[in-house]
Amino acid sequence: MGKVLTKSFASDNASGVHPEVLEAMARVNPGHAVAYGDDPTTRAARETFRQVFGEGIEVFFVFTGTGANVLSIQALTRSIQAVVCAETAHIHEDECGAPEKFTGSKLLTIPTENGKITAEQVRPFLRSIGFEHHAQPAVISITQATELGTVYRPDEILEITRFAHDHGMRVHMDGARLCNAAAALDLPLRAVTGDAGVDVLSFGGTKNGLMCGEAVVFFDPSLTADFKYIRKQGMQLASKMRFMAAQFQAFFSNDLWLRSARHANRMARLLADRAGGVPGVRISRDVEANGVFAVLPREAIPGLQEAFFFHVWNEETSEVRWMTSFDTTEEDIDEFVALLKKTLA
Amino acid sequence: MGKVLTKSFASDNASGVHPEVLEAMARVNPGHAVAYGDDPTTRAARETFRQVFGEGIEVFFVFTGTGANVLSIQALTRSIQAVVCAETAHIHEDECGAPEKFTGSKLLTIPTENGKITAEQVRPFLRSIGFEHHAQPAVISITQATELGTVYRPDEILEITRFAHDHGMRVHMDGARLCNAAAALDLPLRAVTGDAGVDVLSFGGTKNGLMCGEAVVFFDPSLTADFKYIRKQGMQLASKMRFMAAQFQAFFSNDLWLRSARHANRMARLLADRAGGVPGVRISRDVEANGVFAVLPREAIPGLQEAFFFHVWNEETSEVRWMTSFDTTEEDIDEFVALLKKTLA
Amino acid sequence: MGKVLTKSFASDNASGVHPEVLEAMARVNPGHAVAYGDDPTTRAARETFRQVFGEGIEVFFVFTGTGANVLSIQALTRSIQAVVCAETAHIHEDECGAPEKFTGSKLLTIPTENGKITAEQVRPFLRSIGFEHHAQPAVISITQATELGTVYRPDEILEITRFAHDHGMRVHMDGARLCNAAAALDLPLRAVTGDAGVDVLSFGGTKNGLMCGEAVVFFDPSLTADFKYIRKQGMQLASKMRFMAAQFQAFFSNDLWLRSARHANRMARLLADRAGGVPGVRISRDVEANGVFAVLPREAIPGLQEAFFFHVWNEETSEVRWMTSFDTTEEDIDEFVALLKKTLA
Amino acid sequence: MGKVLTKSFASDNASGVHPEVLEAMARVNPGHAVAYGDDPTTRAARETFRQVFGEGIEVFFVFTGTGANVLSIQALTRSIQAVVCAETAHIHEDECGAPEKFTGSKLLTIPTENGKITAEQVRPFLRSIGFEHHAQPAVISITQATELGTVYRPDEILEITRFAHDHGMRVHMDGARLCNAAAALDLPLRAVTGDAGVDVLSFGGTKNGLMCGEAVVFFDPSLTADFKYIRKQGMQLASKMRFMAAQFQAFFSNDLWLRSARHANRMARLLADRAGGVPGVRISRDVEANGVFAVLPREAIPGLQEAFFFHVWNEETSEVRWMTSFDTTEEDIDEFVALLKKTLA
Repeated sequence: MGKVLTKSFASDNASGVHPEVLEAMARVNPGHAVAYGDDPTTRAARETFRQVFGEGIEVFFVFTGTGANVLSIQALTRSIQAVVCAETAHIHEDECGAPEKFTGSKLLTIPTENGKITAEQVRPFLRSIGFEHHAQPAVISITQATELGTVYRPDEILEITRFAHDHGMRVHMDGARLCNAAAALDLPLRAVTGDAGVDVLSFGGTKNGLMCGEAVVFFDPSLTADFKYIRKQGMQLASKMRFMAAQFQAFFSNDLWLRSARHANRMARLLADRAGGVPGVRISRDVEANGVFAVLPREAIPGLQEAFFFHVWNEETSEVRWMTSFDTTEEDIDEFVALLKKTLA
Repeated sequence: MGKVLTKSFASDNASGVHPEVLEAMARVNPGHAVAYGDDPTTRAARETFRQVFGEGIEVFFVFTGTGANVLSIQALTRSIQAVVCAETAHIHEDECGAPEKFTGSKLLTIPTENGKITAEQVRPFLRSIGFEHHAQPAVISITQATELGTVYRPDEILEITRFAHDHGMRVHMDGARLCNAAAALDLPLRAVTGDAGVDVLSFGGTKNGLMCGEAVVFFDPSLTADFKYIRKQGMQLASKMRFMAAQFQAFFSNDLWLRSARHANRMARLLADRAGGVPGVRISRDVEANGVFAVLPREAIPGLQEAFFFHVWNEETSEVRWMTSFDTTEEDIDEFVALLKKTLA
Repeated sequence: MGKVLTKSFASDNASGVHPEVLEAMARVNPGHAVAYGDDPTTRAARETFRQVFGEGIEVFFVFTGTGANVLSIQALTRSIQAVVCAETAHIHEDECGAPEKFTGSKLLTIPTENGKITAEQVRPFLRSIGFEHHAQPAVISITQATELGTVYRPDEILEITRFAHDHGMRVHMDGARLCNAAAALDLPLRAVTGDAGVDVLSFGGTKNGLMCGEAVVFFDPSLTADFKYIRKQGMQLASKMRFMAAQFQAFFSNDLWLRSARHANRMARLLADRAGGVPGVRISRDVEANGVFAVLPREAIPGLQEAFFFHVWNEETSEVRWMTSFDTTEEDIDEFVALLKKTLA
Repeated sequence: MGKVLTKSFASDNASGVHPEVLEAMARVNPGHAVAYGDDPTTRAARETFRQVFGEGIEVFFVFTGTGANVLSIQALTRSIQAVVCAETAHIHEDECGAPEKFTGSKLLTIPTENGKITAEQVRPFLRSIGFEHHAQPAVISITQATELGTVYRPDEILEITRFAHDHGMRVHMDGARLCNAAAALDLPLRAVTGDAGVDVLSFGGTKNGLMCGEAVVFFDPSLTADFKYIRKQGMQLASKMRFMAAQFQAFFSNDLWLRSARHANRMARLLADRAGGVPGVRISRDVEANGVFAVLPREAIPGLQEAFFFHVWNEETSEVRWMTSFDTTEEDIDEFVALLKKTLA
């Protein structure tokens, strides 16, 4: 009958919708609006994105992070080209092959320690350029914050974007958790995206308290010529767009995005600190955003999952992932850590 | 700054969300739920679909009508196959080539008078079967109600589905406005779908008062083996699925779907009757569901559109389309007809 | 055990290889050559194409006409775009959906009397431009000579190419039988291709005496940037390319292409004249190149096919197609016409 | 003007066509034959394949190894599925992304020492089964002989095919150099293919003395239902098929394939032995078929390439690849080794 959860560390998308967002959606409900985005709410939300990310940007709302990633790649590539990314990248690991299916492009992967890649790791792929038997590397895709909970600093991003642009490549950022990254760095969203040379951003709201709100942000408007068609052909064009736009309006009102992201990050830090002090628990990765990875005794996991659901990251090493979110409370953490202690005692 | 509408006959997706739906969404917000559909609300909504469409069905929620159509075709075809449909079909006319792009399958079109096709019109395509130079016809896709506002009777559907099954083909129904069709026929939803031999249905809620709710309903469960992957790869898998499911729960509570569809149909009838009586207006097609087509003097159109936005269907013949919806009121119609009279006087 | 034919009017690809071509292939056999086209024979053949079609062209050899057509479209489109063509076009009718499958682009068809389309027939598709729900018309594809044996005059082509370029579109020509068309018009190959504004040409050799030789000719070199990768990704890159190139070298030596095409055309004319005089036979279309269409009594067809195989074009109307080729002889025709007389007596 | 080679170790496709093959092609030239494979030569060649590979097989001729591989995968997968292969696999490294583009399926790669993979290395991918976020592993593709010149023994193949079949997967073999592998093992072709459980084979002739001849061999006929359409849609259907079939008829006459493969293998052995004795040359991999890998002083390479062209395999390690072929002579080797000695002295 479906897993019933009250609280969990399953994922930041196991949480519901922030009340301010829900209210904003209700507020735009009365009356008619032209469908597909030519309505006042959507116009206003696009204007808000320009205030946040810079006047020169263009933004398109889509339904899912996978949609945002795949359509970004479609905008940046032809099928004879390839996308270089970390082996752990969501586009490679968790999208059921959607990038390859939809774009026809090849993914070329780089093994990493912590989910972050460097320009130097991309360099060997340059040898393929001009050789017709190889897919042509055209895009570097990085995730911020990464799937392993780490965060690229602006200089690290700049090194990648400069390398890319020096070699005729573009940079896509999967920002499903960009808010958490920016909050962690205490920097504006644009500082780790457009200002750091990113060409196209998948901007995620759903994991930070929206119901269903992702956006593709282009920092180079020359890339958007076809994008409205790509979005439609990619089945990501909402008819009642105002309800998506309203979510983003709430997101950027009174810094809701930042309040939520900071809170989730703080809860992760707290969880790592307290759980890490429990004998038998080893925090296995740096906690830089809102994800905590830990190695636990294998036999302890099922019982813990029943009370607070979470995912096992690596069966072999018995490593688990705990995600915090805008609605995680200190009480949740205390309760969970108490359970941890009891279980591992 | 986006078109500001209060009322319109633009489309049934220019309306907002029915208040009962919005309330249902708010109701499922508290607490955590496992993402991607393994939650109690989604389980319940799937159970509701089984009550409505039959115990043997399987249902998957998706974001858009285009998504529902394209993924249905993907489930039914390989790329060497073809889909036969009316020339006016949404899949052919209004999806920016998404079916071809995603499925690789060819669309084979039939010219029609009123948006409806017959088995006899499909017959000539059978000659391609076994001939390797031709895409192999494998699916017949029909729209209920059609893009021209007409409705297939159950016997008309049965004739098509029997023909299809006799020749190894499957039948897909684009039911973006199935509720309006069923209401028009005064029949249960299953009577014009599964009971009439339809294999896969794109079931539309958005045009009948949902925020964003479409579903793919399989009447033959043997077709669903791959579908959860297809949905994910097709970028149509919602993480916070409970909010989609909650919409459908409201939709089927107290016959909201039927109340809304009946109302919209009644408003269309009323509009046709009253507007049709205005000199200079010719109702150009049968009004069977919630769409009204009319031929107007060309020069009258822009002024009317400013007050009540609607779309021109055919520039050459000066034919326009007026769609009614769950929130169209008799006052809207009176006001519009008054304006029509004044404009055409 | 496969149909054994000595002579036939089945298709111009039922014939073998012209002896001069076979000799040329044997001549390039000795020794090693770098694979994939960087060899002296291929260089020479490309140079020959430049002499024939103009210094500014670029040419790529591929295996099949379908390959040439599909890869041409791939070079000219993104998947959100559409190709406008005649309903009878080979790309629409006889390629098992390969264009849609490989390019993701939509085909938009125009009904025709004789296989030829006009700019005016393309005009209505312009209305889709800028409308995100419609695939964007980007290419007009015409066949020369057409699938119905007719030939575009240079002014007819120019009218189409000017219209296309005026509206930001490109023109592709399926020239599987371009040689026959040029021979019929008594014009150089470039007069009905590049000089008439064609952007990309599928140039066919196989139907005019080659073993396996088709080429994609770009008249606008700016379109070729990706093409070597497209050819490889499209599985059309020959390793032992010299044997393909050698065929074209023979083709353009001593006007072999023209001698062969003229001969085939003359044989078609002769066949039409003589068969057309037989009571019961009606030549049903203009004979402009090397195809003859005729309506015969249905019951006469199987017996005739046994002696000289040919294809029925239209079952309903009992219309058949007779193709002549470089090796059709006057004796073949006399023999066939004698059989016709005897059968229909 | 293209590289002029007389002799080379560039690749086994730098050689020309075996004279017996060229003669066979000329022999089938006279007269007409129904196009696309329904002709006596093609029927006979298909029968020959059944004699070689077993009565139950079905075979389809295609133009290129890439075509054979991609269409094999298309026959075995839907786009939501994935193919597991070695990181060095031709399908991953050298086909410009054609598998992903055409099939939409994902490739999942395994790092290897010597180009060979094991069932145990595939096992971790099983964890994805049933998880909708991951492409579903459905095919294991192995190369025989591998891209690194090594050869799978029958028991090694059996281990992989049993594992695959136990887990609902299929096995594809890229047999571009299968003849060399079989010759090396001194086993019949079927012993390392169908008899070892392989489901679909890309059988290569071009690298062993054909002009252009590859075949897809299905050991399980239930997999071929759609394949004739897949071949057409995949642009791999030859019109004048008899010339492809004739090549294979020659190939299997008087064991031409075996004579040629044995010779090439012997020449590789000889080259490795003699070149390996030259100070400064280190044979870097096992020589099991017709490829020799060697590490040379970087500065010696360009001069050697000018006389006997070959490819650098790995720039970093200064490893080169020398391929032998049916027409490599002992004199070539002596001459080359003499040059090596002189250069490295």
